[in-house]
Amino acid sequence: MTPLEKKGVTIVVFSGELDRALAAFNIANAAASMDLPVTMFFTFWGLNVIKKEEGKVGSGGWMKRMMNVLNRGGAKRLKLSRMNMGGMGTAMMKKLMAGHNIPSLREMIEMASGLGVRMVACTTSMALMGLSEEDFIPEVREFVGAATYVGDALDSEVNLFI
Amino acid sequence: MTPLEKKGVTIVVFSGELDRALAAFNIANAAASMDLPVTMFFTFWGLNVIKKEEGKVGSGGWMKRMMNVLNRGGAKRLKLSRMNMGGMGTAMMKKLMAGHNIPSLREMIEMASGLGVRMVACTTSMALMGLSEEDFIPEVREFVGAATYVGDALDSEVNLFI
Amino acid sequence: MTPLEKKGVTIVVFSGELDRALAAFNIANAAASMDLPVTMFFTFWGLNVIKKEEGKVGSGGWMKRMMNVLNRGGAKRLKLSRMNMGGMGTAMMKKLMAGHNIPSLREMIEMASGLGVRMVACTTSMALMGLSEEDFIPEVREFVGAATYVGDALDSEVNLFI
Repeated sequence: MTPLEKKGVTIVVFSGELDRALAAFNIANAAASMDLPVTMFFTFWGLNVIKKEEGKVGSGGWMKRMMNVLNRGGAKRLKLSRMNMGGMGTAMMKKLMAGHNIPSLREMIEMASGLGVRMVACTTSMALMGLSEEDFIPEVREFVGAATYVGDALDSEVNLFI
Repeated sequence: MTPLEKKGVTIVVFSGELDRALAAFNIANAAASMDLPVTMFFTFWGLNVIKKEEGKVGSGGWMKRMMNVLNRGGAKRLKLSRMNMGGMGTAMMKKLMAGHNIPSLREMIEMASGLGVRMVACTTSMALMGLSEEDFIPEVREFVGAATYVGDALDSEVNLFI
Repeated sequence: MTPLEKKGVTIVVFSGELDRALAAFNIANAAASMDLPVTMFFTFWGLNVIKKEEGKVGSGGWMKRMMNVLNRGGAKRLKLSRMNMGGMGTAMMKKLMAGHNIPSLREMIEMASGLGVRMVACTTSMALMGLSEEDFIPEVREFVGAATYVGDALDSEVNLFI
């Protein structure tokens, strides 16, 4: 691989908010449509984006159970970082998106999967939150640590933290 | 262009808060002063940073109108992400900046324009918020989608999401 | 240095929240363990991460003093960006981390220093907040402006804004 050929995009998805998740998948899908390799590394609150909607409420002690109650997660449950207004702002944003034929977050995740975007969960955050591999949507197939992320980022041209 | 010559900075400005906007323009202007090509891609709440101050309250349905009332925007109206304290923290920060001869956000935007920083607005976010080209300050001349951003980012050495 | 050899990581630490600081040091330490040069550029609220815990309350006028009272800083005082819940969520997160033998932020900072991570404070933000070099932990030895950061970022493969 020559330097000029070194291409690709990595995105650390740290945030668990609807607007930031939409931005992450919008960039990821645009890049994947251009045939670029894309890796999304979900960590901390970002794990909420890729949790199964039924979610389990947790295992391993009351603190983790409580963490999971407060972080039910699942693409449908995420809220806006601003103007949530008790859910009203978030509902409004979803309506506006549908009215403009902008795909929902769940549809964007499916699209990303179809386009070959790698979705990877951070094992350190998983341990902290008492989550295991089966707690995530099936599109997430790899579970890695920060060193793997850094290796991927070094091989990519564009690296973002969202 | 040889790999070593591939230079430049892109900044996705997703946030509509004063402190983050200041950080974005501070980096953009420092890079542009070093004769690097710089592109700022304003999306989502970031559109508030580059809206005209008189702003229109919207068109196309009550939801968009409401979005625009809640997002009046304009560089002078932005608030701090922390310690806003009903506007007092933001006013204090502006005083401190003036006291240290740090330019205001509005001045930084003018400086950026003079230094040739490209300011670009995201068309998907514009549609969502019911905004059109004339709603933005004249320094913003291009209106593009995520694919154009990804192309620019691939050609740049430093890519940030703020 | 050939292009293929141009490696390294820079991280702008803009946020002063515990979770984001942990993410920044987690990536920094992973990269430094792989023998990559790493520079962390602390700016705005991020200065709170590297302030001495005893912190001084300020100098130069009541506005700066107030800023410093509200931004006591020091790695032990940082709060989570979400679910702080009056300090309970932050305390819980710290307990969970200790239970998983995940180092505390203070330990991560020491580790970073031992691994040769460069920790640099932004002089513009320091002026704004009325801070001087002796207000920071001894691991911070350089005090620079945005232009120096941009220069470092151009020489690095991975550049993040956290």
